[in-house]
Amino acid sequence: MTIPDFTSSDAPISFAILGAGRMGLEHGQALASLPEAQVVAVADPLPEAAARLARLTRAPRTYSDPHDAIHDPEVQAVIIVTPTSTHAELIEAAARAGKAVFCEKPVAADLAETERVMGIVQETGVPFQIGFQRRFDAGFAQARVRILAGELGEIEQFAATGRDPAPPPLEYLKVSGGIFLDQAIHDLDIARFLVGEVEEVIAIGDARVDPAIAELGDADTTTVLLRFVNGAQGVVQNSRRAVYGYDVRTEVFGSGGKFVLDATPKTPLLSYADGVKMDHYHFFMDRFRDAYRAEIGAFVASLRAGTPPEPGAFDATESLRLALACTRSLKEGRAVKVAEVQVRPA
Amino acid sequence: MTIPDFTSSDAPISFAILGAGRMGLEHGQALASLPEAQVVAVADPLPEAAARLARLTRAPRTYSDPHDAIHDPEVQAVIIVTPTSTHAELIEAAARAGKAVFCEKPVAADLAETERVMGIVQETGVPFQIGFQRRFDAGFAQARVRILAGELGEIEQFAATGRDPAPPPLEYLKVSGGIFLDQAIHDLDIARFLVGEVEEVIAIGDARVDPAIAELGDADTTTVLLRFVNGAQGVVQNSRRAVYGYDVRTEVFGSGGKFVLDATPKTPLLSYADGVKMDHYHFFMDRFRDAYRAEIGAFVASLRAGTPPEPGAFDATESLRLALACTRSLKEGRAVKVAEVQVRPA
Amino acid sequence: MTIPDFTSSDAPISFAILGAGRMGLEHGQALASLPEAQVVAVADPLPEAAARLARLTRAPRTYSDPHDAIHDPEVQAVIIVTPTSTHAELIEAAARAGKAVFCEKPVAADLAETERVMGIVQETGVPFQIGFQRRFDAGFAQARVRILAGELGEIEQFAATGRDPAPPPLEYLKVSGGIFLDQAIHDLDIARFLVGEVEEVIAIGDARVDPAIAELGDADTTTVLLRFVNGAQGVVQNSRRAVYGYDVRTEVFGSGGKFVLDATPKTPLLSYADGVKMDHYHFFMDRFRDAYRAEIGAFVASLRAGTPPEPGAFDATESLRLALACTRSLKEGRAVKVAEVQVRPA
Amino acid sequence: MTIPDFTSSDAPISFAILGAGRMGLEHGQALASLPEAQVVAVADPLPEAAARLARLTRAPRTYSDPHDAIHDPEVQAVIIVTPTSTHAELIEAAARAGKAVFCEKPVAADLAETERVMGIVQETGVPFQIGFQRRFDAGFAQARVRILAGELGEIEQFAATGRDPAPPPLEYLKVSGGIFLDQAIHDLDIARFLVGEVEEVIAIGDARVDPAIAELGDADTTTVLLRFVNGAQGVVQNSRRAVYGYDVRTEVFGSGGKFVLDATPKTPLLSYADGVKMDHYHFFMDRFRDAYRAEIGAFVASLRAGTPPEPGAFDATESLRLALACTRSLKEGRAVKVAEVQVRPA
Repeated sequence: MTIPDFTSSDAPISFAILGAGRMGLEHGQALASLPEAQVVAVADPLPEAAARLARLTRAPRTYSDPHDAIHDPEVQAVIIVTPTSTHAELIEAAARAGKAVFCEKPVAADLAETERVMGIVQETGVPFQIGFQRRFDAGFAQARVRILAGELGEIEQFAATGRDPAPPPLEYLKVSGGIFLDQAIHDLDIARFLVGEVEEVIAIGDARVDPAIAELGDADTTTVLLRFVNGAQGVVQNSRRAVYGYDVRTEVFGSGGKFVLDATPKTPLLSYADGVKMDHYHFFMDRFRDAYRAEIGAFVASLRAGTPPEPGAFDATESLRLALACTRSLKEGRAVKVAEVQVRPA
Repeated sequence: MTIPDFTSSDAPISFAILGAGRMGLEHGQALASLPEAQVVAVADPLPEAAARLARLTRAPRTYSDPHDAIHDPEVQAVIIVTPTSTHAELIEAAARAGKAVFCEKPVAADLAETERVMGIVQETGVPFQIGFQRRFDAGFAQARVRILAGELGEIEQFAATGRDPAPPPLEYLKVSGGIFLDQAIHDLDIARFLVGEVEEVIAIGDARVDPAIAELGDADTTTVLLRFVNGAQGVVQNSRRAVYGYDVRTEVFGSGGKFVLDATPKTPLLSYADGVKMDHYHFFMDRFRDAYRAEIGAFVASLRAGTPPEPGAFDATESLRLALACTRSLKEGRAVKVAEVQVRPA
Repeated sequence: MTIPDFTSSDAPISFAILGAGRMGLEHGQALASLPEAQVVAVADPLPEAAARLARLTRAPRTYSDPHDAIHDPEVQAVIIVTPTSTHAELIEAAARAGKAVFCEKPVAADLAETERVMGIVQETGVPFQIGFQRRFDAGFAQARVRILAGELGEIEQFAATGRDPAPPPLEYLKVSGGIFLDQAIHDLDIARFLVGEVEEVIAIGDARVDPAIAELGDADTTTVLLRFVNGAQGVVQNSRRAVYGYDVRTEVFGSGGKFVLDATPKTPLLSYADGVKMDHYHFFMDRFRDAYRAEIGAFVASLRAGTPPEPGAFDATESLRLALACTRSLKEGRAVKVAEVQVRPA
Repeated sequence: MTIPDFTSSDAPISFAILGAGRMGLEHGQALASLPEAQVVAVADPLPEAAARLARLTRAPRTYSDPHDAIHDPEVQAVIIVTPTSTHAELIEAAARAGKAVFCEKPVAADLAETERVMGIVQETGVPFQIGFQRRFDAGFAQARVRILAGELGEIEQFAATGRDPAPPPLEYLKVSGGIFLDQAIHDLDIARFLVGEVEEVIAIGDARVDPAIAELGDADTTTVLLRFVNGAQGVVQNSRRAVYGYDVRTEVFGSGGKFVLDATPKTPLLSYADGVKMDHYHFFMDRFRDAYRAEIGAFVASLRAGTPPEPGAFDATESLRLALACTRSLKEGRAVKVAEVQVRPA
């Protein structure tokens, strides 16, 4: 196995997109607009979906089996946007085949499997990026840079809210790993991105939106208290349903000031009639479209530059561990140290 | 002892203001602009302070001892804005003298003393209002009405932030009862006002702003997780210091939508140069000036109408109990049921 | 005739309020909360109105004839809030009686009468302030200071919008002097306050709201182009009707940046349901309550300090002249130099 | 000559991009992400520029002469983003060759030439779209739909502001046709888009930013008063320099309410330290990136659907005529009817 040296050529990097659903189209469109990249293969069990994405991306070949795309000799890098349950297996296959890997979160719902596969990624040395797109939003990215530059001084408090317009189908929820792994993980990852590692969590939660969610042993409305290693205090609130749309708000407070990251109005149209009204985002893709494009651009740029993509194996593992700590805290009704969450308990 | 019947006359109600400090001036100015009220006495140990407030309010008499003002036969109602440690004693004296009482929060830092004095208020039947001014802010008041009308549906999550520009003097902090009783109680009272009673709290906190605060056994940076009786989840974050000013933000989320209560810009001036900039409140009195006026107006109006003032003895006691539960949770490092906080432990 | 020397005593200044309508109540409430002032007389032809305001302000005397209040020997200063047609006569009487005068705008709808009465004010030397309250709004006042300090560099463009919720009664409009004198004059005065004197205007206008307004020879929807003496360009748009409420927006643009003065949301409540919604002001008094209080406070403070009140006779005259130039431009369908508007045409 | 029938096939439409500068890259990136389109040729006199854009768009061929690209038999449609002085000639050549045409504004700085070329477009029947991208901004597009649906009732007032961060080079300004044709035309086109045709204009203007602009006979700071055919009143203010960035604000007021289209903050990051601060757009491309993409998407979609692209020859001509009326009004110091601006004067 050899990993291609992307830095020694300026030929476009050849991609396969595994999975031709909504995210496949989104990432395909991003790749298609990048001169540094070309899509040479698309894989999806549904031939029409594969053909549609191949057409969009001018990809010359389609496969029904993603492993065939991985082993296509022209393919140098893969974008994995298949169902979550197949992520680990495909990452492993791609890594063993020496292909660079971008994979939507999560690697797996299971820490042991995540660590195993991330270990293979690290052994093989293939470039790997996990899909925490929020880090590439202009606001969040700028907040991070300015926090690192000391603009907020010592960070003392963090608060994040994440709400979706409506819960996904129960079929999806059954295999989602629960609200912390599936939804809150984005807010938890941002907590780590902007403040640092978390020492302990206390989670509460209920099924307020749909009793069927309780029957799955899952919650749809949760609140978590975080103690960060650096002494900062945090809270994260999530809900699977918000009638007004997609709600992501993050606040970081420190001795030097405060940053608030909320949605700007969806359009620049303010309407004055009975009060003043503006539109709000209803769909995560509208809110984070530019971030999705930027994360693919960053992946391609780091391949070209020969630098390790970020966020990679470490963040994929640690944000999962944090989400699992929340899950355990909610189940066991107690404060849980993040370090407790181990493949072989400490 | 007879309580005046304010409803049977339209003569102005005669007030004494006990305490001629900043809040005395503020409430005095509010009373002076109300045709239903007149200030007939001012009491303060500092003669110049008393004289200044008397002049402002056209009060004909000043006293150095507040008890003399309470027993002034022309006085029908008292505004207690003396140091906190004297509240209970003055409320008791006024109630026993049959005078209507408005008192700044808290009644006492101690639940037993609070319950004892509130018991006297209820026995004597004097009208009593406690100074939770935030309930009279146009935004909070409207939020309450619309929540009661069902606009947000089932309330599921609550989040409040309260930060002051800088900590008060250590001398003040020593007798303040701690951050939950002194500062967070406003956010906790609003939690009760907008969502309902709280069942259990989990508090964490540290002294991040000033180590001398830790030496007092107090915290200056706290985060509390709340479980409401109605199943809603809440968080309250407080800090004694914010370089950007006075920060009060409250969010209530339910099945029907979300209300956010934040400060509007301090002035309507937006300045465009390097980015866009607006002024922010630095002083609680600027933010809540209209609310302070409205609470005094409401007190006078309820005396005139013969209806019990709100918030009264019940809210004074229950918001204190909630603050004490937070204090205990922080001290003992465990979840505390609000019902645990009893004069004789349950 | 002697003008009282307010600087040599710290006794409260004794006021008469002439007119017990809405503005009388507003100014009365402002005076009642100022320790430097006392109201000793109220005049209104309606005895109940006079009595109500006297009660609010603790004024010991009421008069039905404002001249009697002016000549009340205890009265040192008068607040004129009577119908516009009586302003000139009452200012003259008060000035000749040596009383300080605050008068709602305008002095008169007629330039000759305005200049005559302002001449008397200047001859007698009585302190005089005209009621352009917008100058005392925290935003406008701060904008002026920062513009004078050079923050915007050379001023190049100005834009103002003024819209009322609904036209006043036709009876009022008949004697109002027209939209420029009655409504736009506030925006025109602010143009002078923030940018400087105007050289030439071009006005267009129509009756779009109510054809009866056209029959009066008046307009209800107007747009004016301004050339300032300093070379800045300006526009002012007015309407007598806005379904969404009271709309005042002002923008000043220069080589150093831009200031925008718009209304902040009416309350700090943002409501998220179908989009995001906030309340808007429907009533000029809600928008400018603090400014009305501040202008009365400034009047009292300048009497006490012995400095000439601002805005005074000069601004009363020049803002009227500018409004008359707009009126003439609209009538004659041509550009009009402000200097053309003279008692004896230039 | 035959015009391709794009509706009878779902093969991608084959484009040539004429001009490989900044706008060529932007439109190329938009085309590259559209499955309905493919770029088969790029033309630019600079070979590296052509090669770079060909690589970005996967275009197989480059030309140094745009006429060669137009006559490339595979090319079905052209995107003209060459210097303005070449637009007319290239539109004519493409139309005569039966190719669909998208051209950046303006067709020509001259009405006669514009009408001549638009005549050829109409005779040949080739689909034609002019580059008024602002119409495709989500806010402006939605405003138009809601205005047409009657939400604002009768339109009574319009106000637009357009300011650039800094003037373009003098070399560019010399051939730009002046501020109204080069810059204000976007605001004038939006006036027509949202309110309707204009009957008469009165323009004032000066060179405040750079005296060299005056020497060119041009202005850099202008204000225009508009009378619309439907009776609405309008104002448009422009400046070639704004230290705070790119400033586009549009307000439409009617009997049913008001729409305001301003920029949302550049990022969702609010920073609280000394006041509250947000970023502002400094570059038109940042503000209107999505609009540029949407206009190319709309062009492709209308080719595919067989419907005439909008805005086309009519709007290219009428917005130019309006800009020429402003230019004439400024030069001649008088009100100018738009209908006066004719190839052979009326």
